[in-house]
Amino acid sequence: MTSASTISDPVALATRLIACPSVTPARGEIFAALEAMLTPLGFTVDRFVSGEAPDGPVENLLAHRTTGPGRHFAFAGHLDVVPPGGGWTSDPFAPEIRGELLYGRGAVDMKGSIAAFVAALADLPDALPGTISLIITGDEEGPAVHGTLALMERMEARELWPDLCLVGEPTSVNRLGDMVKIGRRGSVNMWISVAGTQGHVAYPHLADNPIPRLVRILTAIEAEVLDEGTDWFQPSNIEITDLEVGNVAHNVIPAAATARISIRFNDRHSGASLIERISAIAAREGGAVEAKISGEPFLTPPGDFSTMISGAIAQVTGITPELSTSGGTSDARFLAKLCPVVEFGLCNATMHKLDEAVAIPDLHALKAIYGLIVRQALGGQER
Amino acid sequence: MTSASTISDPVALATRLIACPSVTPARGEIFAALEAMLTPLGFTVDRFVSGEAPDGPVENLLAHRTTGPGRHFAFAGHLDVVPPGGGWTSDPFAPEIRGELLYGRGAVDMKGSIAAFVAALADLPDALPGTISLIITGDEEGPAVHGTLALMERMEARELWPDLCLVGEPTSVNRLGDMVKIGRRGSVNMWISVAGTQGHVAYPHLADNPIPRLVRILTAIEAEVLDEGTDWFQPSNIEITDLEVGNVAHNVIPAAATARISIRFNDRHSGASLIERISAIAAREGGAVEAKISGEPFLTPPGDFSTMISGAIAQVTGITPELSTSGGTSDARFLAKLCPVVEFGLCNATMHKLDEAVAIPDLHALKAIYGLIVRQALGGQER
Ligand SMILES: [Zn+2]
Ligand SMILES: [Zn+2]
Repeated sequence: MTSASTISDPVALATRLIACPSVTPARGEIFAALEAMLTPLGFTVDRFVSGEAPDGPVENLLAHRTTGPGRHFAFAGHLDVVPPGGGWTSDPFAPEIRGELLYGRGAVDMKGSIAAFVAALADLPDALPGTISLIITGDEEGPAVHGTLALMERMEARELWPDLCLVGEPTSVNRLGDMVKIGRRGSVNMWISVAGTQGHVAYPHLADNPIPRLVRILTAIEAEVLDEGTDWFQPSNIEITDLEVGNVAHNVIPAAATARISIRFNDRHSGASLIERISAIAAREGGAVEAKISGEPFLTPPGDFSTMISGAIAQVTGITPELSTSGGTSDARFLAKLCPVVEFGLCNATMHKLDEAVAIPDLHALKAIYGLIVRQALGGQER
Repeated sequence: MTSASTISDPVALATRLIACPSVTPARGEIFAALEAMLTPLGFTVDRFVSGEAPDGPVENLLAHRTTGPGRHFAFAGHLDVVPPGGGWTSDPFAPEIRGELLYGRGAVDMKGSIAAFVAALADLPDALPGTISLIITGDEEGPAVHGTLALMERMEARELWPDLCLVGEPTSVNRLGDMVKIGRRGSVNMWISVAGTQGHVAYPHLADNPIPRLVRILTAIEAEVLDEGTDWFQPSNIEITDLEVGNVAHNVIPAAATARISIRFNDRHSGASLIERISAIAAREGGAVEAKISGEPFLTPPGDFSTMISGAIAQVTGITPELSTSGGTSDARFLAKLCPVVEFGLCNATMHKLDEAVAIPDLHALKAIYGLIVRQALGGQER
């Protein structure tokens, strides 16, 4: 069992979580460790396994505690980590403190954040009314098909409707608190293929070379201006990421040519609208498009929730965070369908890298910030 | 030994040559067979092996007969054949007559032509003054590095300078005599590569995507008009034959992109001038070009030689050949440095295909045409 003094120490909790290997998809031990922290705090813990190969099975954990009528505050995150790779100074799953830093895979992304949140819960006044929930998946770093989406289905089935959701991803850049994410761009990959007629280069009139048509399509795509950006988003951007013909015969005009593009887009667009737009360009040259939407964009426009979070950060760290929508996608894109979502967590400098480490003072500060946010979210006293 | 009656029969000679397997590079038996045909006709036969791996060794044969002062007429060709592949009705190296056709690999390309030429020599008047030579390689269908080029060096060393050269490649299309080649386009392949800086698609400002630059280069190349064609050549043509990036990571901007182009060009250009021209286009976008010239163009402008050949063809077949420069490259591109070169031979419908076959009447007609050409070239009587 977990003693009261340990459960309020974010360093001890982070150490315990890092010590459980949990390369994505995470299952078992790491979830048992978190469950053992939450149960003594009065949480109902629901662990379940979702999905099948190839994108599953995945373990998820939904915990909630209701202490009277009031608002519902949710904290979302993941226990899985990316593979550690080689070259670490110490075992990535044997947490080690050297100087002010706690080393281990997941230290900042995002076992440290989960530990800080649990530690903050341990110090909350007992009588704070409302509902607190934890939405924790074992598959955020992987395909993310049976993780947060399955948790949201579970919440719907149990009629758990959060009013606000904080995602504990490592959003800080240079100093804890310097950046909060209030949105993320959407992401879509498209494969543009053009079919022609194979032939010999000496007799081009008998062939139909698909490459010049693909080049014209790509030229048109490069000339597209999707938007000029918005108040909260940078301009949507198209990158051509691959070209493929695979023709080894020097004197042969190939039968087909393919390009892959990747679009990061803001809330002026949807994945579907972009697929339609690119398909229309490709069609002018007889090209066809296949697409895979990795995520739609989301935005929680600056307002009460972000102001409250910025205030808590400023109160603990003395700095006012930038409200950003930069970077890749996160599971916040799913949760944004439920309620206002903001992401805030540790410094991301070492995430996904070797010798991932969290500054111990940051863990304590993050616990304090998270504690303030929960109290304010539930309408309690600020101090 | 070869009897006089056999040596003047092109079908018997072709049969004997086809029966010697000689997939490129050809050596040994097939050369011995040809040598055994030429020696009784008074030719000095010089067989030699040239080159080393990977493009050699290659066997070559230089035969010549001088019967007094006069012009020097050369016949050029090859004894090697492309691999037969599967699916033949009869053994590709066991010549078989079915109906009017003699089947076997090399029947038209070009053992049949060589047989027709040797048979024509056997019927020439003894007193015809001048020099006749045969320039025969065992590597025309392969790399062609140590074949005709080595023969030309040998000829230079022996001070054998032909005045006219007939290459016996199968130039006829639908009927024997319908086409003579007075030139060939040149051929060059180029690899255009653009280097950039790899990065994540979410942070394009930290990367430098080479693909849009490659697309701009290819757009500029597609807009190039090399020429409008000449009296004897169709317009030079550029085909983009391959694109390669090889980037499997959907969210990564790649570090490099490459395209391959193939140019078939007429005598308005040289391989070097085109490399310079494409390199200048590529350089505008920071691209680099590597190139391999497969052959320079050649043209023997219509004149006495082609008129004489056309006349011989018309006299035997009743049709006037088209003087063409179409199709791929041949060893005539090398020989054109020595003297006027024209190519004329059998129908090419089955060349390089399964069940390659020559029409027996065509072998006899070709023998007659070649005989007329040699007599006229050496200044003898026409009949
Ligand atoms: Zn994460
Ligand atoms: Zn040939």
